[in-house]
Amino acid sequence: MNNSGVTVSDTFFKRYRELVRTEMLPYQWKVLNDEADITIERERDDASIPNEKSHAMENFRIAAGLSSGEHYGWVFQDSDVYKWLEAAAYSLKDHPDEALKKAADQVVELIGAAQEPDGYIGTYFTIMEPARRFKRLGESHELYCAGHLMEACVAYHAISPESKALSIARKLADCIDQSFGPEEGKIHGADGHEEIEIGLMRLYHTTGEERYLRLAEYFLEIRGQDPQFFARQYREDGGKPLIGGLESFSAAYLQAHRPVRQQDTAEGHAVRVVYLCTALADLAATKKDEGLRKTCETLWRNITERRMYITGGIGSTVRGEAFTADYDLPTDTMYCETCASIGLIFFARQMLRSGARGEYADIMERALYNTALSGMALDGKHFFYVNPLEAVPEKSRKDPGKSHVKCVRPEWLGCACCPPNLARLLSSVGDYIYTVSEQTILVNLFIQSELTCKTEQGGEVSVSLQTDYPKTGRILCTVSNQGKIPVRFGLRIPSWHDGIQGIVDGSAQEILNEDGFWYISLTPGEHRIEYTLELLPKRWYANAKVSDCVRRVSIARGPQIYCLEEADNGKDLHCLSVIQNAPLKYERREELLGGIGMIRTPGLRLLNRDEEAALYTDDPGALLTKTQELCFIPYYAWANRGENEMRVWVQEAPPS
Amino acid sequence: MNNSGVTVSDTFFKRYRELVRTEMLPYQWKVLNDEADITIERERDDASIPNEKSHAMENFRIAAGLSSGEHYGWVFQDSDVYKWLEAAAYSLKDHPDEALKKAADQVVELIGAAQEPDGYIGTYFTIMEPARRFKRLGESHELYCAGHLMEACVAYHAISPESKALSIARKLADCIDQSFGPEEGKIHGADGHEEIEIGLMRLYHTTGEERYLRLAEYFLEIRGQDPQFFARQYREDGGKPLIGGLESFSAAYLQAHRPVRQQDTAEGHAVRVVYLCTALADLAATKKDEGLRKTCETLWRNITERRMYITGGIGSTVRGEAFTADYDLPTDTMYCETCASIGLIFFARQMLRSGARGEYADIMERALYNTALSGMALDGKHFFYVNPLEAVPEKSRKDPGKSHVKCVRPEWLGCACCPPNLARLLSSVGDYIYTVSEQTILVNLFIQSELTCKTEQGGEVSVSLQTDYPKTGRILCTVSNQGKIPVRFGLRIPSWHDGIQGIVDGSAQEILNEDGFWYISLTPGEHRIEYTLELLPKRWYANAKVSDCVRRVSIARGPQIYCLEEADNGKDLHCLSVIQNAPLKYERREELLGGIGMIRTPGLRLLNRDEEAALYTDDPGALLTKTQELCFIPYYAWANRGENEMRVWVQEAPPS
Repeated sequence: MNNSGVTVSDTFFKRYRELVRTEMLPYQWKVLNDEADITIERERDDASIPNEKSHAMENFRIAAGLSSGEHYGWVFQDSDVYKWLEAAAYSLKDHPDEALKKAADQVVELIGAAQEPDGYIGTYFTIMEPARRFKRLGESHELYCAGHLMEACVAYHAISPESKALSIARKLADCIDQSFGPEEGKIHGADGHEEIEIGLMRLYHTTGEERYLRLAEYFLEIRGQDPQFFARQYREDGGKPLIGGLESFSAAYLQAHRPVRQQDTAEGHAVRVVYLCTALADLAATKKDEGLRKTCETLWRNITERRMYITGGIGSTVRGEAFTADYDLPTDTMYCETCASIGLIFFARQMLRSGARGEYADIMERALYNTALSGMALDGKHFFYVNPLEAVPEKSRKDPGKSHVKCVRPEWLGCACCPPNLARLLSSVGDYIYTVSEQTILVNLFIQSELTCKTEQGGEVSVSLQTDYPKTGRILCTVSNQGKIPVRFGLRIPSWHDGIQGIVDGSAQEILNEDGFWYISLTPGEHRIEYTLELLPKRWYANAKVSDCVRRVSIARGPQIYCLEEADNGKDLHCLSVIQNAPLKYERREELLGGIGMIRTPGLRLLNRDEEAALYTDDPGALLTKTQELCFIPYYAWANRGENEMRVWVQEAPPS
Repeated sequence: MNNSGVTVSDTFFKRYRELVRTEMLPYQWKVLNDEADITIERERDDASIPNEKSHAMENFRIAAGLSSGEHYGWVFQDSDVYKWLEAAAYSLKDHPDEALKKAADQVVELIGAAQEPDGYIGTYFTIMEPARRFKRLGESHELYCAGHLMEACVAYHAISPESKALSIARKLADCIDQSFGPEEGKIHGADGHEEIEIGLMRLYHTTGEERYLRLAEYFLEIRGQDPQFFARQYREDGGKPLIGGLESFSAAYLQAHRPVRQQDTAEGHAVRVVYLCTALADLAATKKDEGLRKTCETLWRNITERRMYITGGIGSTVRGEAFTADYDLPTDTMYCETCASIGLIFFARQMLRSGARGEYADIMERALYNTALSGMALDGKHFFYVNPLEAVPEKSRKDPGKSHVKCVRPEWLGCACCPPNLARLLSSVGDYIYTVSEQTILVNLFIQSELTCKTEQGGEVSVSLQTDYPKTGRILCTVSNQGKIPVRFGLRIPSWHDGIQGIVDGSAQEILNEDGFWYISLTPGEHRIEYTLELLPKRWYANAKVSDCVRRVSIARGPQIYCLEEADNGKDLHCLSVIQNAPLKYERREELLGGIGMIRTPGLRLLNRDEEAALYTDDPGALLTKTQELCFIPYYAWANRGENEMRVWVQEAPPS
């Protein structure tokens, strides 16, 4: 079977999709054109981060000869435009919009105009240093940008096949194919930031052109074969760095410390790792390469079982925005970049293609409902780069080691990778709900939607999924199998479930758990499946090896991690404790934060007996506790009520 | 009365003083001469830190025209030599040593030879950029080095009045006096790193030359009058930075954000702050300036009541080695530079001159017995720059945000300020034991020693203090008052005391606490005071506002903070808890770590029920606790048994 289309009608995501269309895309369009009256903040206290303006569209106009001036911004500034275009394409598929279509058409035209005669696109190099093309790949992001261009063009081609988008992407891919590969005279290396591999795979899936598949494979396999590749290029280039400081990072920062098939831990820059893994898993599924699938599985396990925050955030340190060590998950200095969780969602989606394991979808859902969504304010116009597990405004202001831990989402960021990445994820969320293969349909996410599949025999299978999840866990699937043979229909059983019921065509069924899915064989005809997940507010505990979470709990309900916010609980959240075994009361608060669930529980507040208490005391009576009800809100909704403290992992106290 | 000499015969410090003489000074001499076969480590992962060699002595030889080549190392490399010379002077006073005297004489000669005709000394500028002298004071450390030279020369003059030391210092001070001051044509600013103020005050105390006092005062008062002074100098200089990155720091980093008398919180680089405060407090005591004393008191309170670790460490962040915010005392990313605690000791000593408050001496003792001593290995040849409250080797290796948190003391450091600073502190520890004023002698520290004072009437008062403190709290003072009037003899009552007894001339006394001292009036004649402090192992708690210490305890006995080390307790120290109310058993372990006290207590270890436990679980039964005896050793002695984990603040669990 083939997935021939998903229409999303979900309540929870409708808000976001509308926000993308009505707010994010118009807003980001203005920003990229330097027409928004906003403050661009540096994502951390680093004076080298460009933050005067975006200039991304102007860079294209200059490269195209339509304007004059110098390139401004990061060497990878072009990718902001590509991600915007990709998001626009998804949104247009979902909802026609003439003004948006016109703007997107303009962007495609402009990219085409900025393309060099041999197919190369890269405004920094075209404008500023054409002679350094492909000479400093550890920093240049040329192929990273190319990959994003390919993704955007493939997406745009799907809704506008008459546009030049696909031919622009192919011409660029051909140019890269001429320059890289095992043949003598070509460059034997890859880009410092993975993404071209994803773009080429998508271009291959759309065009069927085997050269693109081979080139993606080449980039994946050459990586780390020569750990000195990037350093040697730096030496040979000898010029000034394109991104100051990057050259001091090790090969592992770029996942180039050893051949990819030999990598068994997630090392270096978190976004790079999950982009690498996404392409690897795509290739493994596409070529049915079991060895490669095992590499992906090993990296998946290392990330999700050793190096991931409970919010689905990854990247334990700001320096290099990187992974550190197993179980090293500091809750106050972490990075947890929005893009990294988005990449983890990409990775999970590809893993589901070659392995029907519910855990991939569990993690996808965890990252989506928590760190990805927390990357954006409820207004769609303010964005986090870093998604902390705890935040204290004064510490972020006064400790330069926490300058990246912002407590209010900025209007835009010096490095603006996250906002358009979120836009493209949210506008394409339908692509993550189902995994369709030969005779199986997996329901990964419980997002209200309609799916249509074509069977190999020319029949059609349609699925209608109705739910108000995660508000409740009631899911109604109506499946119309108009094919000739039964369809294997798999509903994910979340690993965290608190009770499940399944009724198929009116009769209650025993639910068998096969690697995290409940499979029902649906014969040709109409079927109605009532699937009910009980969603109870509850406590989560971390592995004892996670030092920052010892004797602390995290409160969650279904896929949503909850947090304490100062707005509901007062200052000094570190003084609050959840009481063991105390009831967690869940209530809907439709008037609050766009409609959320709130969890209340009796708790304790530690406090100094004396107002002017000493810094240290040997008197245990100097500290008191008083009872205080604690109010938790979903993590994604924090920081929408002004600057305040937030905390996910809360002390747990024994019952008194 | 005047203090006319202290002889230290203390058991605990004898080891250190011998170490300074027999190991540290000869070892450091070799290092400064590039003759030691050692590895110089960068104090953190920062490629700009020079670590090929010291070159400090060679810089002087080149500046003196005795050798050729370029300057190598930091712009403040000279200060390593000055601090070594100062330490050598103190050691020679204590213990004659011909070879050391010869080396020290050579150093004085060499410094004299490197002095320019107008008195200026600064090997970097003399060798490399004479035209930039005093042009970039925010980075140049020229007056910082000059201050250290003055301190060294004053110390050396005291044991070798025939040497040129004092005249070199005076000539340099005169040169600086010609260049700085309120007069037109002079520079209206101070050095970015305070120290000249301390040096000038000492030079004034030794020579009585009022100009030096006035110049010290000028530097203290001009600071922060024009917060743009340093930035303007950078602009006017326009050349390449002397220390890359420093110019991006704010004026507060250099305590230049406002006039010093208006500063009420400790801001910026911690060592700079306490050096500034030391000179301020010296000036306040010297001039009996009550306004200035209040400024010092305000800063003292802010540091010690809001921004100091329980170990006497200061500086909460590596970036800028700086203070951050009140109660922001992270235990795993802190700085706690050895030099900063040494500076806090200097500050306390000066505060005692104008205010007989036991708390100054309490903090002095806390910093001395904990963070200062932990700065050095028991062999005297390995040194910490950073003194963490917890350390986990893998985290230090894998998290670049913890690269400064070393778990093994390096042989030497790229920035080698701490080792010779420790050498000079330990060899002059006698100067901190007593505070002598008109008719009062304060005993600040319980270090076995003999003090001789001359009274204004020409009499002599001698004190013999016998103790094996901090092994026990038994202190015997024999005082011979050969003056004509009674002496007010003040014994410090530590704020943490666990019981005190005092017997004066055979009769037990009630102990009245006057601001942390017990005063006894000793009439002319001989007196015997038996003073006994009970030293019980006990728990310390932090103020509830210190988020990193919530529900954690620190174990201490007397002035010594204790810690858990992996060598005694196994890995994953974060899993260990002290049980509330459980007994703390103290025992001496003479065979261990040069002889230490060990504190044992029944504790708990949290562990995963399953070996391959999930990263997160909603099953509270997945975590177990088992009992484990915990063994604490004194903090100063950690990291002397190979690379391992350490932790000061330990979870506290309720009794089961």
